[in-house]
Amino acid sequence: MTLDRIYQAVHLLKPSVRRTEIIPYPGIKSDCDLYLKAENLQLTGSFKLRGAYFKISMLSDDEKQKGVIACSAGNHAQGVALAARDMGISATIFIPSVSPLSKIEATRRLGAEVRIIDGFYDDAHQAALKHQKESGGVFIHPFNDEDVIAGQGTIALEILECMPDVEAIVVPVGGGGLISGIAFAIKMLRPSCKVYGVQAAGAASMYSSLEKGELVRLPTVSTFADGIAVKAPGDLTFDMCCKYVDQVVTVTDDEIATAILTLMEQEKLVSEGAGAVSVAAILFHKLPLSGKKVCAIVSGGNVDVNILSRIISRGLRTTGRLSELTVEMIDKPGQLQEVSSVVAQLGANVIKVIHNPSGENTDINGCYLHLSLETKDKAHFQGIIETMQARGYNILP
Amino acid sequence: MTLDRIYQAVHLLKPSVRRTEIIPYPGIKSDCDLYLKAENLQLTGSFKLRGAYFKISMLSDDEKQKGVIACSAGNHAQGVALAARDMGISATIFIPSVSPLSKIEATRRLGAEVRIIDGFYDDAHQAALKHQKESGGVFIHPFNDEDVIAGQGTIALEILECMPDVEAIVVPVGGGGLISGIAFAIKMLRPSCKVYGVQAAGAASMYSSLEKGELVRLPTVSTFADGIAVKAPGDLTFDMCCKYVDQVVTVTDDEIATAILTLMEQEKLVSEGAGAVSVAAILFHKLPLSGKKVCAIVSGGNVDVNILSRIISRGLRTTGRLSELTVEMIDKPGQLQEVSSVVAQLGANVIKVIHNPSGENTDINGCYLHLSLETKDKAHFQGIIETMQARGYNILP
Repeated sequence: MTLDRIYQAVHLLKPSVRRTEIIPYPGIKSDCDLYLKAENLQLTGSFKLRGAYFKISMLSDDEKQKGVIACSAGNHAQGVALAARDMGISATIFIPSVSPLSKIEATRRLGAEVRIIDGFYDDAHQAALKHQKESGGVFIHPFNDEDVIAGQGTIALEILECMPDVEAIVVPVGGGGLISGIAFAIKMLRPSCKVYGVQAAGAASMYSSLEKGELVRLPTVSTFADGIAVKAPGDLTFDMCCKYVDQVVTVTDDEIATAILTLMEQEKLVSEGAGAVSVAAILFHKLPLSGKKVCAIVSGGNVDVNILSRIISRGLRTTGRLSELTVEMIDKPGQLQEVSSVVAQLGANVIKVIHNPSGENTDINGCYLHLSLETKDKAHFQGIIETMQARGYNILP
Repeated sequence: MTLDRIYQAVHLLKPSVRRTEIIPYPGIKSDCDLYLKAENLQLTGSFKLRGAYFKISMLSDDEKQKGVIACSAGNHAQGVALAARDMGISATIFIPSVSPLSKIEATRRLGAEVRIIDGFYDDAHQAALKHQKESGGVFIHPFNDEDVIAGQGTIALEILECMPDVEAIVVPVGGGGLISGIAFAIKMLRPSCKVYGVQAAGAASMYSSLEKGELVRLPTVSTFADGIAVKAPGDLTFDMCCKYVDQVVTVTDDEIATAILTLMEQEKLVSEGAGAVSVAAILFHKLPLSGKKVCAIVSGGNVDVNILSRIISRGLRTTGRLSELTVEMIDKPGQLQEVSSVVAQLGANVIKVIHNPSGENTDINGCYLHLSLETKDKAHFQGIIETMQARGYNILP
C-alpha cells in the first residue's frame, strides 16, 4: 500500500462519490470534542461505494468487458452495482435468500443482475465463485483487496483536510477494509492521531485475531449489525491492522441499539448497526478519548425499516426510558386508578396497559396489571417501583 | 422588513447557529433536480433557533435582564431555551401537559425553567401571558414577529450562496414565519425563483386564508405534524405570504408519513412531520417542478421516537410495501403451508401471522388467517390476492 494509491483514488472518485459531511456532535454524554464523518449520507448509504468504485475503475478494458461479480446482501452489493453502472460495466450480484426485500430491490434498482441463492452468505459465496470460473468476470472482494482498501482510505484524507488537528478516529470494523485504509493513511500523514476500531461483541473476529496474534475464524457470529457480521478478517486487512491500528474494542448489541437511537434523536441521522458501533464505543466510554478532538465514522445507514422499531425499543429499554412492570392486584374497583395516579404523579407516561385476570398460580380474586411506561431513566423507574411497594403493591420481577 | 435586517441576523447568528448542509437528493421518484436544506441538522433539531436567537439578541439590556417567556411544546421552546442560555438570559417556557416527555426533558436540559400547565396549547398560552404581565419579561412569539421572521430569512441567503441558480424553494408552513422570511429575501434578491408553501391538510390555515383573501382561524386542527398544527396565521405573516409567496398547497398525513419514511430510507435523515411536508409535496407531485432546480427545506427532525414506528408503518402501507390480508380457510392440515408457499413464490416476505379459529358468523370448521406481508408495491400485493383467489381461497376485504 502506498499513499500515492490513495491519492489516485481521491482523484478517480471525485466525479461520482460524495465528499460526505463532517457534522459536529455537541452531545452531552461524551466528554470529548466529537465530530461525525457521515458516510451514511454517501451515495448507496454506505462507504462501500468508495472501495468498489476505485477497484472497478482500475480494471483493464478486457476485465471490464467481462463484467464484475460480487456476493453480498447489503452495502457492498449496492456499491458494486452503482460503480459498475456509472462505468457502463455489467454487474452480477449473488444475494442469499434470507436477505431483506428492501436491500434486494435497492441493488436491482441500481441496474445489477441479482441472483438470489437459497440459504445464507456462504451458499451465495459458493455460487458467486462458481459463476466467476464460468464467466471469467472479476470477483470484487468486499475488503481483502488493496484497491478496495485504498478506496476506503480516501475518507482519512477528507477528515484531515477538514480537521487537521484531529487526535483520534474511531472506525467500525467488520472484515477490516475500512480501518486498514484509514489507519494506513493516518499513520503516514499524522502518526500522532490514534486510530481505534470497534466490533460487535458477537462478531469480534478482528478483535480476537489481534488478541491472539494470528488470524482467527469464528465458527458463528451473532449480532444484528449485519454489515460487520464477518467470521474472519482477511490476511491483508489483518496484517495492516497489526501494523497501523492502535486498539480494537467491542460493544454489545444493546449498546449499538442505544447508539442508533441516540444518533436518531440527537443528530437526526439514520445509521445501521454496523455504522453506529463507533458512536456506541464513545457513548459507553470504551476508549481513552476524554478531552480529545475525535472523529467517529458513521459508516452506513442502510437499516431495514421493518426492524428499526425493535432497535428503537431496545435502545429505550437499555437507557431506562422504556420500562415495564407487572403489578399484582386484588381485582377490586379503583386499583387501576390508584396505580395510574402514582405513575402520573411521578412524571411517567403510560404507553401500554394490559390487564389480565388471574393466572394459573394465583389467588382466584387476583389479577395482573402489565404497564409499559415512558420514564426518564433507570433511577426514575426505580422510584416508581419503590413508591408502589410502599403503598402495598406486590411488583413482580 | 428589509434585507438589511436579514443580513444583520446572518452576522449575529454566525457564532452560535449552524449553517446547515444542503444535501443532493438523487432520488428516483422526483423528476426535478432536488436538494435538501437540512435544518433538521440545526442545533436543537429545527430552524426555530434562528428566529429566537435573532429576536433575543435584539432585546435591550433592560429587557434581557427581565428574561424571556415562551409557550411551546416543541421546537420554539428549544430554540428560545438555547438562545437564552447562550446569551446568559433566563428563560421561562410554558408547556402543555399533553406534550411528550422527551420534548419537556430536552427543553429542561437546555437550561430553561419549564412550567407544565394542565391542558392543551391554549391553556399554556394563557398562563404564559399571565406570567408575562406579572414578571415584565419579554414574550417571544413563535412566528408573528419581524425579528423572528428576519432570523428565519437567513436560510434563504444560505441557499442562494450555495445554489445561485435555484429555481424554486419549497417550504413547510405552520404560522408562516419561516416562509415569510424566506420568500421576502428571495423576491428581493432573485425574483424569478418561485417560493412554494406546504401545509398539512388537517391544519391548512394559511392555505385557507390565502384562498379566502382574509385571515382564517380554524376551529380545530388535526394532523400528526404537531410542529405546523397552527389554527391561524399571524397578521404579519399572512400579509407577507400574500405579497411574496407564489402558491401554498396541502398534503395528507399519509403523504407526510411516506415522506418521512422516504427521507429515512433514501437520505438517512430523520425528519418530523412538519419538516417533511415539503418533500411530501414533491413526492406526490403537488407542485409544477418538473425539470427545475429545487431546494426543499426539511425544517426539523424532532419526532418522538415512541410514535416513529407508527409513522413508518403508515408510510409502508401507503406505498404498498406493508400489506395485510385475511384468508378464510377450512381448518384442515396443509392449508397454512399452501398459503405460505404462494406468498413465498411470489416474492413477498411474511412479517406476522395470526391464526384465528372461526368467528361468530362463520362455519364451525372455518378459520381465519391474518397475514402481514412485506411487498414491493400495490401491484405486487394485488397479484398475490389474485393468485390466492385463483386457487380457491376466499380473501376477506
